[in-house]
Amino acid sequence: MPHFILEHSANLNGQTDVQALCDLILEEALQTGYFELGAVRVRAISCEKYAIADQHEKNAFINITIRMGAGRSADDKKKIGDAIFAAATKQLMPLLNEPYFALSLDIVEINPDLSWKKNTMHNRLRKT
Amino acid sequence: MPHFILEHSANLNGQTDVQALCDLILEEALQTGYFELGAVRVRAISCEKYAIADQHEKNAFINITIRMGAGRSADDKKKIGDAIFAAATKQLMPLLNEPYFALSLDIVEINPDLSWKKNTMHNRLRKT
Amino acid sequence: MPHFILEHSANLNGQTDVQALCDLILEEALQTGYFELGAVRVRAISCEKYAIADQHEKNAFINITIRMGAGRSADDKKKIGDAIFAAATKQLMPLLNEPYFALSLDIVEINPDLSWKKNTMHNRLRKT
Repeated sequence: MPHFILEHSANLNGQTDVQALCDLILEEALQTGYFELGAVRVRAISCEKYAIADQHEKNAFINITIRMGAGRSADDKKKIGDAIFAAATKQLMPLLNEPYFALSLDIVEINPDLSWKKNTMHNRLRKT
Repeated sequence: MPHFILEHSANLNGQTDVQALCDLILEEALQTGYFELGAVRVRAISCEKYAIADQHEKNAFINITIRMGAGRSADDKKKIGDAIFAAATKQLMPLLNEPYFALSLDIVEINPDLSWKKNTMHNRLRKT
Repeated sequence: MPHFILEHSANLNGQTDVQALCDLILEEALQTGYFELGAVRVRAISCEKYAIADQHEKNAFINITIRMGAGRSADDKKKIGDAIFAAATKQLMPLLNEPYFALSLDIVEINPDLSWKKNTMHNRLRKT
């Protein structure tokens, strides 16, 4: 944890750099200071089939779900969400300037009693 | 919000019209009267690798997750789930008539305090 | 239910047998004794675009989410998670022996009041 999962309509491929958005979210997540380097995993899921609003062919969406360990304060969670959403908003301004786009983000907390993990990157990255 | 996420085994491609199912769910969601036109986002995720029950090659599944804002009454949530599930059931009757198919749906509520969004479709669609 | 959803970075394709991991999880889930044969659905989602930790090209992840009906005891949930995680750990040992891999698993419970399902496999499998 944390996990950043971007789902998006496939019509964004070619017009939006989804890889750059993944990279940006990784960077922003680290800059919040809440997450350890080796723990951050961002990924995108491109959805070829979708149906959005009035089905205008330009309609598109990106939804970002942050799945992270429970226990942070409401204020900390707000800061995290604010930071990632602001970064995504900035990068996606060309889409947000047109009347066909929905951007959303939400945080889901993972119950530590129902979580298992092994991460072999930590040892390497804590040493450097 | 709301988000309708269909995960399905890839063996349904070619035998079931997943795009038509996305379109149907969009239409049904709007007909419930609970959701604004510009807010509804339906998408499908086709899973190439899967393992279902006894691994019969005909085994297939569709799982629909509705992610929507928290705060609706239990009765409202039941009406929404009932409506979408009934529509999906009707369209998927050929699969449900064979002993190899699992259809499931569940509703997950999103905490409004942990949710961020910008939607540029609303202005366009509210005006028309 | 239960649903086992494996998300993974696409760089694992070719070096890890994701289908075999799906098969293994199905088998392990059944061996726990908590789940009915016809109910178990495992699937993988391969993510082509991702950003992990220090962005080393070998960095990879697998995240397993178990979505299952609410109501089991804390002890039962721990046994289920332990069993699946142990099986995945064993199969993924080559990855876990290198400093580039994160494996995670968590359990999400589905509210039975917000769940709908039809499963035509049960009749066939209960008869045999």
